Amino acid sequence: MIVALLTDFGTQDHYVGAMKGVVLSVCPDATLVDITHDIPPQDTLTAALELQAAFKYFPPATVFLAVVDPGVGSARRAIAADAGSYRFTAPDNGVVSLALRDAGEPRVVQLAERKFFRPTISRTFEGRDRFAPVAGWLARGTELAAFGAPVPDHVVIDVPRAKMTPPDAVEGQVLRIDHFGNLITNIAADFPLPPPLTVRINERHIRFVATYADASTGELCALVGSSGYVEVAVNGGDAAAMLKARRGTAVKLTADRR
Amino acid sequence: MIVALLTDFGTQDHYVGAMKGVVLSVCPDATLVDITHDIPPQDTLTAALELQAAFKYFPPATVFLAVVDPGVGSARRAIAADAGSYRFTAPDNGVVSLALRDAGEPRVVQLAERKFFRPTISRTFEGRDRFAPVAGWLARGTELAAFGAPVPDHVVIDVPRAKMTPPDAVEGQVLRIDHFGNLITNIAADFPLPPPLTVRINERHIRFVATYADASTGELCALVGSSGYVEVAVNGGDAAAMLKARRGTAVKLTADRR
Amino acid sequence: MIVALLTDFGTQDHYVGAMKGVVLSVCPDATLVDITHDIPPQDTLTAALELQAAFKYFPPATVFLAVVDPGVGSARRAIAADAGSYRFTAPDNGVVSLALRDAGEPRVVQLAERKFFRPTISRTFEGRDRFAPVAGWLARGTELAAFGAPVPDHVVIDVPRAKMTPPDAVEGQVLRIDHFGNLITNIAADFPLPPPLTVRINERHIRFVATYADASTGELCALVGSSGYVEVAVNGGDAAAMLKARRGTAVKLTADRR
Repeated sequence: MIVALLTDFGTQDHYVGAMKGVVLSVCPDATLVDITHDIPPQDTLTAALELQAAFKYFPPATVFLAVVDPGVGSARRAIAADAGSYRFTAPDNGVVSLALRDAGEPRVVQLAERKFFRPTISRTFEGRDRFAPVAGWLARGTELAAFGAPVPDHVVIDVPRAKMTPPDAVEGQVLRIDHFGNLITNIAADFPLPPPLTVRINERHIRFVATYADASTGELCALVGSSGYVEVAVNGGDAAAMLKARRGTAVKLTADRR
Repeated sequence: MIVALLTDFGTQDHYVGAMKGVVLSVCPDATLVDITHDIPPQDTLTAALELQAAFKYFPPATVFLAVVDPGVGSARRAIAADAGSYRFTAPDNGVVSLALRDAGEPRVVQLAERKFFRPTISRTFEGRDRFAPVAGWLARGTELAAFGAPVPDHVVIDVPRAKMTPPDAVEGQVLRIDHFGNLITNIAADFPLPPPLTVRINERHIRFVATYADASTGELCALVGSSGYVEVAVNGGDAAAMLKARRGTAVKLTADRR
Repeated sequence: MIVALLTDFGTQDHYVGAMKGVVLSVCPDATLVDITHDIPPQDTLTAALELQAAFKYFPPATVFLAVVDPGVGSARRAIAADAGSYRFTAPDNGVVSLALRDAGEPRVVQLAERKFFRPTISRTFEGRDRFAPVAGWLARGTELAAFGAPVPDHVVIDVPRAKMTPPDAVEGQVLRIDHFGNLITNIAADFPLPPPLTVRINERHIRFVATYADASTGELCALVGSSGYVEVAVNGGDAAAMLKARRGTAVKLTADRR
């Protein structure tokens, strides 16, 4: 029984540790795995994208406990879900919606049965008092219907979409900047353009390559990244710093004229 | 057998990994959980507060391995303890003292039996050579008396206390600033003041609310936080930055005149 | 079956989580331990030193999954190895070479058998698609020969060496700066110099002591650190900041004239 956690709690405080203690109190045999706790505070889009990128590498029956929760303490719903071979619990703000869609055939319920929560529920830390114990019960195999009534309209997060500009370009944007300064865009690898290709970003023209090693050290390059989207990188360097790029920065992929 | 770790070692070096290797060498079935390794260097008060806030969410029999140790290599004592249903090992500098008190009926012994240590003990890294193996033996169920003689006077850390200023105020201070910039004070939730309430900090008057959602986005608010103490927060923002507050900053809670 | 991870992936992204999911997909009973994910990007020397410092504290049969991989996607070899009682998988760039040497009698093979990889291998993330599943198979006990042919000439990383300057000094350099600002040098503890000793670094003369507690608060001191090398530290402070020292800064250890 794996429980994989994704939050914006950081690692300096005891918050993640307390959640793990609660999960283990319900399900002592759980194997806990951190996806990340360094989602920017309240950034549900980044959380949803990171969970989408990670979940499918876990074994069937893994429970994902995703708590990025700007509405903590409010009337926003709390949910649990089964989709594909995976299980999820999270606030109903879209944070699990991309993974649910990719996993397939999501069934979502509202967390209503108080017997699956801790006896007292903090208005500022439902991750500990509501979502963590539910993750423990999901890991123990509790049926989804036991937690509450079906939710037919769970929140689906809006991801900016790339668009074709015929005949020979795709226009998108930077969705995420990773630890290495690589720019992950919203342009999927299945774009219908013939090579050779060029990426344009902040007035720079960047050559499309197959792998980092095809670029010289310090050279900007564009390539298909590990999640199946176009990325801009520097071999041995930090593309975000070099290009002064941020989330939302425009990216244009063009088939070169020959 | 859960072993939960709290240190000021950070995560950039191999230090925490080496400690975990040692715990697993003694107790291969241990489940290791990080509370945090980002305690400010040598800050035993923050360590004691974080451990106090976290320990009670773990299952019975959990072993807490807490190493924030400004006196490493000196003659300060090393201890193990049982309290409530939990077990502890740490330097005797107060780092576990608040958890021991809350867990109840602490029994403390000095680590003296060398057979529970690694054969060679570094003068700069007792966490690896002394405390980690003892945590492994505690997890295996070794009786407390086996480690050494009782310590009747273990060090208890001094926490600044809030005080009533009759008839209608409590004066305290900021004890801790978390990852979100929330200010955690030393004013416990059971203060005997009638609502409505106001918090004053660095010349600002801040409204007391039930949950973040009762404040507008970007608005300062005060509320009872997840550990049962008054906190000052900004809905969707960073209160410490907005108020230029630090540990020790004065906080006054007042019942509003009506 | 312990799988211990060391990478330069940081913890803000899903990368380490995805690798762990893959390991657990192959070997569901694996106990995962992070050594560190905060190796400076592409810094194979720091990675090799940290792994060397950590591996021997883990129980026999531990698998080390070390991915610091500036040549990802290129023709550099990928390897698995047995040495002493431990197992390893990594790119063949020296990152495991110091641990292999210390563990003793390394046997190294090239990863060639595709059945041990994920079906599709990203050109930018072999950690997930090649090394993580191999770590899982190593943890399950797959024999080394099954992965591929022997590598007689695996890459051994070059570590700057300290040298004696007779009659009474050793000259070395700073190899690593840790979380506390301690300077870890390349001068091993078995230098043949009689006490009392002085360390000179950036024009400062620093007294050699047995433990931090022998220095006053805020005083620079030199001592034998937990990995068996000379370190320069400040009792309760940050030596790197105080001395403006960096990796490569010269360090001279001298036997005092009497």
